[in-house]
Amino acid sequence: MAILGATGAVGREFVRLVHERNFPISVLRLLASDRSAGKTITFRGSEIPVLSTAESSFDGVQIAFFSAGSQASKRWAPVALQKGAFVIDNSSAFRMEPGVPLVIPEVNWHQVRDEDRLFPVGNCTAILLVMAVAPLRKFGKLRRLVVSTYQSASGAGARAMRELEEQTRSLAEGRTPVAEVFPYPIAGNLFSHNTPINEYGYNEEEWKVIQEARKTLEMPDLALEVTCVRVPVLRAHSLSVNVEFEGPAPSEAAVREAYEAAPGIALVDDRESNRFPMPMLAAGKDDVLVGRIRRDYTNPNAVSIFVCGDQLRKGAALNGIQIAERLVAESRMPVGA
Amino acid sequence: MAILGATGAVGREFVRLVHERNFPISVLRLLASDRSAGKTITFRGSEIPVLSTAESSFDGVQIAFFSAGSQASKRWAPVALQKGAFVIDNSSAFRMEPGVPLVIPEVNWHQVRDEDRLFPVGNCTAILLVMAVAPLRKFGKLRRLVVSTYQSASGAGARAMRELEEQTRSLAEGRTPVAEVFPYPIAGNLFSHNTPINEYGYNEEEWKVIQEARKTLEMPDLALEVTCVRVPVLRAHSLSVNVEFEGPAPSEAAVREAYEAAPGIALVDDRESNRFPMPMLAAGKDDVLVGRIRRDYTNPNAVSIFVCGDQLRKGAALNGIQIAERLVAESRMPVGA
Repeated sequence: MAILGATGAVGREFVRLVHERNFPISVLRLLASDRSAGKTITFRGSEIPVLSTAESSFDGVQIAFFSAGSQASKRWAPVALQKGAFVIDNSSAFRMEPGVPLVIPEVNWHQVRDEDRLFPVGNCTAILLVMAVAPLRKFGKLRRLVVSTYQSASGAGARAMRELEEQTRSLAEGRTPVAEVFPYPIAGNLFSHNTPINEYGYNEEEWKVIQEARKTLEMPDLALEVTCVRVPVLRAHSLSVNVEFEGPAPSEAAVREAYEAAPGIALVDDRESNRFPMPMLAAGKDDVLVGRIRRDYTNPNAVSIFVCGDQLRKGAALNGIQIAERLVAESRMPVGA
Repeated sequence: MAILGATGAVGREFVRLVHERNFPISVLRLLASDRSAGKTITFRGSEIPVLSTAESSFDGVQIAFFSAGSQASKRWAPVALQKGAFVIDNSSAFRMEPGVPLVIPEVNWHQVRDEDRLFPVGNCTAILLVMAVAPLRKFGKLRRLVVSTYQSASGAGARAMRELEEQTRSLAEGRTPVAEVFPYPIAGNLFSHNTPINEYGYNEEEWKVIQEARKTLEMPDLALEVTCVRVPVLRAHSLSVNVEFEGPAPSEAAVREAYEAAPGIALVDDRESNRFPMPMLAAGKDDVLVGRIRRDYTNPNAVSIFVCGDQLRKGAALNGIQIAERLVAESRMPVGA
C-alpha cells in the first residue's frame, strides 16, 4: 500500500485507520511532496520514513491512497493506475468525471462496476450530508434540501488546525489572533467558507456539495441549497438540514427507526436532556451522528435534522479505507495490499 | 430613567448606549436583584450604586428599561407602569401578549398606538432575522423561510460570556473545559440551543423566533423553519437564511439595492475578496450586516443571505434605546426621562 500525502491531516488519519482496523497490508510506502519527505511516521511501533514521490513509488503497489490535493492526484493517479494499483483519491480531481463512481459504501456501492479501479472519496461535507439523507429516501420523493454547515478547521488541513489552536492561545492571552492559513481569524469568529465564489454566487465548497450529493444520491436534479460556514471547531463538521418531500413527511418515530437501522449512523436525539449531535461527541468517532429530528412545524412535507461527523474519519480517511475493505471483501483486490 | 438588571450583559450595554447616544436623562437609577445590589457602575465618570428593586424604585421614573429576566419583568413592569413610567422590557414576558406591540423601530413602528406604554424588545435572533427579511417583502409574497443560526455566548448573559472566556483559556492550556452555565463545553464545540424542547420538537429559542418574527412582520401564517445553535463566539449572532417567495425571486442587484437603502443594515458582500458578514465585523457595531446574497441555484423563487449582528446591541439594548428615542422624538415622553 502507498499513501500519498501521508503527513497531512487526512493522510495521518488514514495511517491510523490502517493500523486500528488491521487492514491487511504487506508493505506500507509513505509518500509526500518533496517538502515533507524525510519526516517519519510511527506505524505499529516502527518509524517509517516519508519518501518523495516518483514513478517508481508505485511499483508493486496494489492500492494507493491519495490525499495531497488535486494537482498531485492528477499527476500521480494515472501512474499508479497504469502500474496496476487501485487508487482511492481523497481529492476532488476525479469526483465528477462521468463513469467514475463516487462511492459511500453504505449508500451506493451498487454503482461500482467490475472494471473500476479509481475511487474518489467525496467532499467531507457532501459525505456527511448524503449519509444523513440517504435513509430518508424510502419515505418518498425528495423535493428539496436546505442545508447550512458548521465546518471545522480540519477540512482545511493540518496547518489550519494548528492555526486554530494557536489563535485560541492568542485569545486566551488577550493577544489578537493572527490569520495566515485562513483569510480571517477563526478563533472566536466564523466566516463564509474560504473558497472562491463562482458566477452563481456559490463558493467552491458549496458547489462540490451540491454536485457530489446529486451524483452519489443518483438524483441529478435534486433541489439542494447549501451555505458553507467555517466555525472555530477542530475536527468535526456539523450540518443543519431541512428535508422537504414531495408528499407528507414521515413521522418522527419512522425517521428515528430509519436511522437506527442505517449502517454508519448513530442516533443522538434526547430531548429530555437536550443532548443532540455536537462536535465533542463526534470527534474521533466513525459514526455520523444524527438528531434534533422534528417535523417542520410550518411545512407538513418537511423534517429537520442536525448532523455531526468527524471530518477526518467518515468525511475522508474512513470512507477511503471502507472502500478498500470492500474491494478486499469482494476479492477484487488480493489480500496483503 | 431606571435600568433593572443593570449589572447584566444587556443592562451594561444599555448604560453604555445611554451615554454614547447622549440620551436625555435627568436621573439614572440602576437596579438589580438583591444579589447584585451594592455593586457600582461607572456612568459619565461617576460611580453609580446599584440598588435593590422596590416599589419606590419607580417613583418619579419616566422610563424604565428591564433586562433581568421574565420573572422580574412580570413582578415589576406592572408597578412601573402603574407609577406612570414607559417600560421597555428586554424579557420575553409580554412579547406575545395580544395588543402589546413588538416593535423594531426600522420595521414596524406603525404598529404603535398612542396609548402604548409597554414595549417589549424581541428575542435577539428574531430581531436580526426580521431586520434582514423586512426589506425583501417588497419583492413579493414570502412563501417560506429556512433559517439556521450561529449564536454567541452573550445571548445567555454575562456569566456565559465569562464561561466561554474561561473555557478558551482551558483549551489553550490543554485542560478540559468545565461547563457550568451551559450544559456542555462551548469552547471548541457547538450545540443545539440550550433551552427546553417543546412538544413539537422545537427549543424555546426557536419557538420564540418563529412566533415573534411572525408577529413583527405581521405575517401570522408565515412558514418559517428555524434551527438555533450555540457556537463559540462571544457577542455576535449569525444567521444563514433561505428566503423563498411565492413567485420568482428578485435579482441579486435588486436585493443589494434594497439592503443599501434599508436603515440599520450594512451590506457586506464582496465576492472578490471573500468578505461577508462575520462576528469580528459585527461585534460592537449598531448595523446588522447582510451579505452572501445569491439567487438559489436550484430554486428560481428563492434567495439566500447570511446575516450577522451584535446580539447585545441591535439584538437587545440598541433596539430598546431606539424605542425610547422614538418616544422622545414623537413627544410621547418628556425630554429628560
